[in-house]
Amino acid sequence: MRNSHSLPYLSLDENAQYYECGFSCDNAVVVRVEESRFFITDSRYTLEAKELCKPRTEVIESANFIQSVQEVLQKLHIHKIVFNPQELSVQMYEKLKNALEKHKCEIIPQENFHQKLRICKSEQEIALIKTSQKLNKKAFKRFGMHLNKIVKKSPSEKALHYQAMQFLSHFGEYELSFEPIVGINANGAKPHALPNAKCYLAKNDILLFDAGIKYKRYCSDMTRTAAIKGEIHFGKKQKFKNPKYQKIYDIVLKAQEEAISKARSGMSGKQIDALARNIIEKSGYGAYFVHSTGHGVGLDIHELPRISRLSEECVEDGMVFSVEPGIYLPQEFGVRIEDLVVMKNGRAEVL
Amino acid sequence: MRNSHSLPYLSLDENAQYYECGFSCDNAVVVRVEESRFFITDSRYTLEAKELCKPRTEVIESANFIQSVQEVLQKLHIHKIVFNPQELSVQMYEKLKNALEKHKCEIIPQENFHQKLRICKSEQEIALIKTSQKLNKKAFKRFGMHLNKIVKKSPSEKALHYQAMQFLSHFGEYELSFEPIVGINANGAKPHALPNAKCYLAKNDILLFDAGIKYKRYCSDMTRTAAIKGEIHFGKKQKFKNPKYQKIYDIVLKAQEEAISKARSGMSGKQIDALARNIIEKSGYGAYFVHSTGHGVGLDIHELPRISRLSEECVEDGMVFSVEPGIYLPQEFGVRIEDLVVMKNGRAEVL
Repeated sequence: MRNSHSLPYLSLDENAQYYECGFSCDNAVVVRVEESRFFITDSRYTLEAKELCKPRTEVIESANFIQSVQEVLQKLHIHKIVFNPQELSVQMYEKLKNALEKHKCEIIPQENFHQKLRICKSEQEIALIKTSQKLNKKAFKRFGMHLNKIVKKSPSEKALHYQAMQFLSHFGEYELSFEPIVGINANGAKPHALPNAKCYLAKNDILLFDAGIKYKRYCSDMTRTAAIKGEIHFGKKQKFKNPKYQKIYDIVLKAQEEAISKARSGMSGKQIDALARNIIEKSGYGAYFVHSTGHGVGLDIHELPRISRLSEECVEDGMVFSVEPGIYLPQEFGVRIEDLVVMKNGRAEVL
Repeated sequence: MRNSHSLPYLSLDENAQYYECGFSCDNAVVVRVEESRFFITDSRYTLEAKELCKPRTEVIESANFIQSVQEVLQKLHIHKIVFNPQELSVQMYEKLKNALEKHKCEIIPQENFHQKLRICKSEQEIALIKTSQKLNKKAFKRFGMHLNKIVKKSPSEKALHYQAMQFLSHFGEYELSFEPIVGINANGAKPHALPNAKCYLAKNDILLFDAGIKYKRYCSDMTRTAAIKGEIHFGKKQKFKNPKYQKIYDIVLKAQEEAISKARSGMSGKQIDALARNIIEKSGYGAYFVHSTGHGVGLDIHELPRISRLSEECVEDGMVFSVEPGIYLPQEFGVRIEDLVVMKNGRAEVL
């Protein structure tokens, strides 16, 4: 099942809408039947939808989405339609089911079906993700240069978070793909801590920075962990004064490089996960690598495939995902190093 | 039904979680049974949850929320639990229903039940919304002063949008309650246009600015429409060079003032809506006032009560809502004027 689906389907998800029709808004249902798309939305959006939707998309103005879906399916004599049970609310589902049952149309739950059909990226999509990551890297570089200028003023984590967002958005040019994570020392070991206004950056600290932007709706994602000494930068070669920081950093870097260099098309997600995890486990820090090695990236910041301990998904050419092992020592510090890769000619190429 | 509910209930919504327990995170279920709260979350959040949840909240670490909910209900011999069918996904609902049915516990859909029980605000909540709106007004004032400085440089709508966000957030201090709307001339007539990079502000333009921030999680919301001439400001007294702008502005202002001065506790949402709508209809622009007069504001930016043409909800003391009539002339311009009010001693007091 790739870039198509044998059955008609519907989605309310904005990224699925955009993928299907080249346009999305926050109040629409897209129905796809073979090569035809139906973009059902309210009067606020029909003008833009007609202007911006791809060919073979019919825009339908509607004050009653359920009825409009039912009319489209009835007209085309459709008797089965797929939906994502993680996406539809109980309320919408009940209404839809009742309306479609009257016309003998069955509504079939298929978990995450739309992410599955877009799991392999086209050349054009890969180029967009690459540009997104290039702009993201530029922002990392500029933020690093900025840090050199302000580190003497002991900025708070909260201030750094705000300034990072300015660099990441290229001062309003691009949207972010998620709230950046800026963690100083022990805060870098917390999985989801909010930026702290009372935690200040100082010399010889260790700084975890995880961020991404969107370019033409495609997400980027990168993490670096930097030594706050000498010339501060977000490159992968880091020299820490604290030998424990250095030791952990070197293990994580080795794990990340191992996974990238040894990943092959045809491996399962868990085999790639194991490439990184084995290095960390052998070094004795397995218990401190508390998340998956990676996740797919595309229109959504978290997509398929899952590169995790349990993932049986087979990785193929054209898939784009993150490789981001980490070690988190509670109350001390955290290290994570993340790049995006695309599988190409059987190997992982860093974007 | 106010600030309590006769039946036990559960919610996944972060604002409902926060209201119940004083803490929230993006992966939790809250169960409320009489005066007891159960905060069920994964291992990433339990430390913070234990630190920050209110008394009478039990934090439960769980890798299986369905099972944990079922265990809580079984232990307390609960046989009925309320949920919001707009909130729960089909997938979660099916799993929950199956798990609870085994223990003869019924799961009862009640639309939007949590917003209903927090529709009347406490004195403390009103004070927080007031502070939020005060900070919002300060940002409007500063953004207005900034406009005077930069208007000669013909900034684009996109640039203004970015700069507005800086003032609104007080340079990183506060979160926004929604993406601000900055619409120049005809863009102010589009209900949901994205900020345009090729539309530039110039003398004698009309600018619609709708924005809000969050203070201790409580939202503010305000809209002003400003004349770009002389001393630019976001006060309600505006003088336009273009007589059509002035005519429409004066109608909207009169409609807004009428609704605020004549709203009374005991009226229905549609009666208050009619106070504003009648003025606009009598002036001949009824067809161009395409939305409701207002909406409740609290932890969510859109809450109950609805102040709309169809709303039968009775407005009572302690309710906080927006009053925001508008007239939108397609391809020309739009005017909206919005304040927040709280019902107090039977009347609407502007926050």
